[in-house]
Amino acid sequence: MQVLEGDAARAALTRSFNEIPVPDAVLARIRDTFGEALTPEAVVARILDDVRQRGDEALLDWTAKLDGVRPGGLNVGPAEIEAAQVDPTLHEAIRLAIRRVRSFYEQQPAHGFLNHSPEGALGQLVRPLGRVGVYVPGGLAPLISTLIHTAVPAQVAGVQDIVVATPPARDGTVHPAILVAARELGLTQVVRAGGAQAIAALAYGTASVPAVDKIAGPGNLFVVIAKRMVYGQTGIESLPGPTETLVVADDSADPRHVAADLLAQAEHNGAEPVLVSTSRELLLAVQAEIGGQLEALPEPNRSWARDSVLARMKVVLAADLHEALALANLYAPEHLCLLTRDPWSLLGQVTRAGGVFVGEYSMEALGDYVAGPSHVMPTGGTARFMSPVNVRDFQNIISVVGLNASALRQIGPAGAALARAEGLEAHARAIESRL
Amino acid sequence: MQVLEGDAARAALTRSFNEIPVPDAVLARIRDTFGEALTPEAVVARILDDVRQRGDEALLDWTAKLDGVRPGGLNVGPAEIEAAQVDPTLHEAIRLAIRRVRSFYEQQPAHGFLNHSPEGALGQLVRPLGRVGVYVPGGLAPLISTLIHTAVPAQVAGVQDIVVATPPARDGTVHPAILVAARELGLTQVVRAGGAQAIAALAYGTASVPAVDKIAGPGNLFVVIAKRMVYGQTGIESLPGPTETLVVADDSADPRHVAADLLAQAEHNGAEPVLVSTSRELLLAVQAEIGGQLEALPEPNRSWARDSVLARMKVVLAADLHEALALANLYAPEHLCLLTRDPWSLLGQVTRAGGVFVGEYSMEALGDYVAGPSHVMPTGGTARFMSPVNVRDFQNIISVVGLNASALRQIGPAGAALARAEGLEAHARAIESRL
Repeated sequence: MQVLEGDAARAALTRSFNEIPVPDAVLARIRDTFGEALTPEAVVARILDDVRQRGDEALLDWTAKLDGVRPGGLNVGPAEIEAAQVDPTLHEAIRLAIRRVRSFYEQQPAHGFLNHSPEGALGQLVRPLGRVGVYVPGGLAPLISTLIHTAVPAQVAGVQDIVVATPPARDGTVHPAILVAARELGLTQVVRAGGAQAIAALAYGTASVPAVDKIAGPGNLFVVIAKRMVYGQTGIESLPGPTETLVVADDSADPRHVAADLLAQAEHNGAEPVLVSTSRELLLAVQAEIGGQLEALPEPNRSWARDSVLARMKVVLAADLHEALALANLYAPEHLCLLTRDPWSLLGQVTRAGGVFVGEYSMEALGDYVAGPSHVMPTGGTARFMSPVNVRDFQNIISVVGLNASALRQIGPAGAALARAEGLEAHARAIESRL
Repeated sequence: MQVLEGDAARAALTRSFNEIPVPDAVLARIRDTFGEALTPEAVVARILDDVRQRGDEALLDWTAKLDGVRPGGLNVGPAEIEAAQVDPTLHEAIRLAIRRVRSFYEQQPAHGFLNHSPEGALGQLVRPLGRVGVYVPGGLAPLISTLIHTAVPAQVAGVQDIVVATPPARDGTVHPAILVAARELGLTQVVRAGGAQAIAALAYGTASVPAVDKIAGPGNLFVVIAKRMVYGQTGIESLPGPTETLVVADDSADPRHVAADLLAQAEHNGAEPVLVSTSRELLLAVQAEIGGQLEALPEPNRSWARDSVLARMKVVLAADLHEALALANLYAPEHLCLLTRDPWSLLGQVTRAGGVFVGEYSMEALGDYVAGPSHVMPTGGTARFMSPVNVRDFQNIISVVGLNASALRQIGPAGAALARAEGLEAHARAIESRL
């Protein structure tokens, strides 16, 4: 791996936001499925439109076509949710994760204010959303933690009605671990649908799936495009895409831990691991460690991790920790791991990241499951303007204006003057008619 | 005007979110300008693409084509901002509006937390965005208040770098009132560009306009479509479209005030005024008042208001205030005005609205200028999932995980169990390598 420095490092860590990258394999699969070379946007537009028009039938048809199964019913029945079982260790881990994520979000300040003064009252009410959709990606294993890390902040926000959507397995079932997590969370609606078709159902509503006010959760390229397209129709919390971790390490870091953290990131499909260090020795030691740890991984994880390392890993030598943090802020990583002698002293310099993992016992993998904050964090540099999933995502502010006659006398004339300057005579008169 | 009740009222106040309505006049203007029948989306895509490719030149070309002027320079010079003057009454009104909006947002709770415990520390940092673009629509008059009501919350959030974009007048200038407001706000960059081309410049950056992290502010159909399209590339605060007010009034309301408030709304282009009352007498009296007050308005305001009233005004008779509030929540209005005997007693029933205007001295027109909360509020029913512009729009949350060895021993095994259940072996090992 090439070690980048200075301007070359800055160039490599500057994001190009212009396009969502589309892997060739995705384009090939589109050609196979549709018999023509469509863009992913065209595919998603077609699916959204069809689900909007034909509802459940379209949802079932697309699930059959894309996920290879036509489930008997779209919603998992209550008896099936009730009966789901996993081994006791996993069950306890699910309970612990729910407890810890809940306890974290209960600490988030998320209240309004109403300030009464002699002029009346002004303030903000904070209200939970009415109904939220949680998208849990499918793939090769049940993403239990994604359900927990999205639904719990919504529950803490006060949302009463949460609909879960997740693609069914080839046999039409939803993994029991997802159902156990749903049951532990008190959720009763789990829809057997994924991809753009699930986003469409949550946005527009069908006979079996109620339209929601906001859709939260990560997904593949098609899910992200669908969320972008339905935005405005319904709310979305962010556009989480392929994951990434940037590790800042100095010469005090243990190369074994740095390598383990980068590989934990790398085993995600499309992941981008980035290492920024002030020590050339550490960079070399980590590269050697990555080689060894890669070999020790079982398949398919070894292949996944190797693909990410070979295709996308970036290694940067920084002049000092100040430059390292500047590069991290430039990149705006989803995960920023600080593996340095005094990591807390760097926190004040972090301006752009989804989450910061401080020190060697706070590995990002722990944050993915049981640390507390949601693992659904902004990717692709969108940490410039987006936040990890949090309580605010599931609450609205309503402004309150409750002024009295005395306040109106004080400020009404200025309001009328501004209204006339803007050419809005009826505004001015609505004020003056009460003066 | 037809008075709607019961199911008919519910149907009339249920939003269809499927399409952004495109007036025929807009389609005709597109045909005239482009020589072909393009959709607004196709027009915007073309403009975005061109500005991304050709930068300033494209920005100037589109301004010439669509706004009828090719400004000498894209940025208003510092001397011009310094020299701008308006009459002293208006100047003082601008200062008052800035003071009051600032004072309101300084009260918004917007802080993070970092909870240190024996297991280490968990929390959320709250950071201002780096650079924000404020879009100020053009039109027939300078929208001074829009600049104030968008820039001030960003400033209170701690944003250091704010770029203003607004379409130039036919002579290439920006109205002195906008420049005076910018000066009073301490803003130094005002870009002479509007429409989709301005959104493109703010999203992608050009030689004269730096790319921003988030674009805030209302605009016409093309601006809203452009904001939707660049979302992901850059942040956007919401998608404010044509404005609307829903007035809930009982038999105690003064028909003159109700009519004045509805007409103040109606004089906006495309506005939707809605009146819900428990009193048939009031409905009739307000309709008579609207007729009289309309006639007394000068042109062009009279025509604007008449168009909105004739095309879109809805009048609803509710069985009681409980039903009136339920209908208001269903509609999720940008502005909800409570003109009833005891308006504060209704506040707890409001679940969906941009802003609530409580009682007869809190007319919405006052809120547009000097009350305090931003007048940029969610329209078109998006108050189901969006908030008025506020401090949170201009801050990101960064999650912090800083656990110690003892915490890792406690929760690490559960994390590893979840990782293995999700098929992520390298995650499990990254945790276990520290245990």
